[in-house]
Amino acid sequence: MRKLYAGIDIGGTMIKTGIFAGTGELIADWQIPTVTKHQGSYILPHIAASIRDYFKNHHLDEERLAGVGVGVPGPVLANGYLENCVNLGWGNVYPADELSKLLGGIPAIVGNDANMAAMGEYWQGSGKGYNSIVFITLGTGVGSGIILNGAMLYGAKGLCGEIGHISVNPEEPEVCNCGHRGCLDQMASAVGLVRNAKRLLARRTNSSVLAGINELSAKQILDAAKEGDVIAMETVDYCMNFLGKSISDVSYVVDPEVFIIGGGVSKAGEFLISVIRKHYEENAQLVSKKAEIKLAELGNQAGIYGAAKTIYDKIDKER
Amino acid sequence: MRKLYAGIDIGGTMIKTGIFAGTGELIADWQIPTVTKHQGSYILPHIAASIRDYFKNHHLDEERLAGVGVGVPGPVLANGYLENCVNLGWGNVYPADELSKLLGGIPAIVGNDANMAAMGEYWQGSGKGYNSIVFITLGTGVGSGIILNGAMLYGAKGLCGEIGHISVNPEEPEVCNCGHRGCLDQMASAVGLVRNAKRLLARRTNSSVLAGINELSAKQILDAAKEGDVIAMETVDYCMNFLGKSISDVSYVVDPEVFIIGGGVSKAGEFLISVIRKHYEENAQLVSKKAEIKLAELGNQAGIYGAAKTIYDKIDKER
Repeated sequence: MRKLYAGIDIGGTMIKTGIFAGTGELIADWQIPTVTKHQGSYILPHIAASIRDYFKNHHLDEERLAGVGVGVPGPVLANGYLENCVNLGWGNVYPADELSKLLGGIPAIVGNDANMAAMGEYWQGSGKGYNSIVFITLGTGVGSGIILNGAMLYGAKGLCGEIGHISVNPEEPEVCNCGHRGCLDQMASAVGLVRNAKRLLARRTNSSVLAGINELSAKQILDAAKEGDVIAMETVDYCMNFLGKSISDVSYVVDPEVFIIGGGVSKAGEFLISVIRKHYEENAQLVSKKAEIKLAELGNQAGIYGAAKTIYDKIDKER
Repeated sequence: MRKLYAGIDIGGTMIKTGIFAGTGELIADWQIPTVTKHQGSYILPHIAASIRDYFKNHHLDEERLAGVGVGVPGPVLANGYLENCVNLGWGNVYPADELSKLLGGIPAIVGNDANMAAMGEYWQGSGKGYNSIVFITLGTGVGSGIILNGAMLYGAKGLCGEIGHISVNPEEPEVCNCGHRGCLDQMASAVGLVRNAKRLLARRTNSSVLAGINELSAKQILDAAKEGDVIAMETVDYCMNFLGKSISDVSYVVDPEVFIIGGGVSKAGEFLISVIRKHYEENAQLVSKKAEIKLAELGNQAGIYGAAKTIYDKIDKER
């Protein structure tokens, strides 16, 4: 009987779980709501119960579950310590130890969700076949996960891949949630696209399909840009220029073979990639052979894939 | 009889050689001029002959030389291939293979000189005791070498650590040697300090000790800044702001424990470090605990230390 591995992605509203074979095959997946009340103390018991239920309902021997990997929206230290995870209500926790106890002592590992998604794309998505990738997620914020020669980078303080706080725009008047002004996060995230589109709409007299919209979204801006709306196109070009510049900067630090673009904003597809690539190539002039830039493939399942792969690798290493 | 390792640093004018014990003890070192004529074809034979001479003159058995490591001013691929090294006149060479043949087939390895210096500082300099360092050299240009968990980063195209081409100043009018405008290299190198001081002297009416100097040097600017010269202080602050910002950016990618500052400009000492640290901390606001910033310790011997350590590690790994 082959061993199974659970990959879990805890988000602020939903918890995704996948059951995987060690070969990367997704056998089952489901979602449960994230209950954040009582400092998020229900989250791990809910996860353990849903996994137990799955095994029971499918007449599977629970002993076949070899381990569980979890991605969380916060910085996790190498020893598994999580100082603060505002979205889940957690503080000062070692969630892997707790989850392991709830599941009868099986190996568990917890990591940052962007890192887990990077590992997922590396294992079974757009990163398959590469040795070194940088996975960039463009959502509410900008995050990334970096894998060099097959190994995830964590860093001395869990900051590896926090490229959302690369300083890109000294002229940005608003303050980023990190306390600095002009971070990549403020430009290339969904929030950044909306903020910059509104500014441009206020400043310009061009007619635009975006002008009448009350609650403007990044998707609307990207859709309008594809249709040739001038304000939308200018917004996308302006914001993605900062991402292209940052990709160039990152290539001068870790020089991966490929940059993989995921997250909600990446649903704009190859249109978005072509804008990013143009600005990356304008900036990265030191070598003629540039890194590839590709769309992510696993969508919002990248996190569960990567979490399963991370616990699989940990168990494999200790064998 | 303990084994010995040669560490070599080939510069545009001089070749430095050190003979080391595997424990890191420097037993002897010397310099010979770099003869770049005839496409640099004399360089490797000169190195081999000077090593042979050393062993002969000191009545040492040549068999004790276990291997030789070499740093060169250019990007070296993982397979030892060097496409182009303008300073030495080399093109399309595998210098490690050639040097190995000249020394009777002993193991040889060639790498980028900034990477070698990083490894030297990591082994026996300011990086001793750390797991993850970024060594930055401020000289004619800005280079760096990155060591994470004891392993040097090379990258897919040998670009790891080429932080001199991080894009920092969109307002820079001159073009960098990479073809882009506004690279860190143009701001924080010795050349960048001089260029920016001259611009400030031309624009301001302040009196300055720098005003009368014909061939202004970075050292004169840094010395004047320490003495409180307003133009010099403003130049150093302006240029090192870009370095501090870049150090913050790099910490969001590879998150090392310490940044080590070497190269000729770093002779300005703790005064320079304090200016860099101020700007780094202004930019890196995501976490309260910042990376350390320290002066390099090995000066222009860092390269021979690192080259010796690199061949030592390679032999050790294959044992």
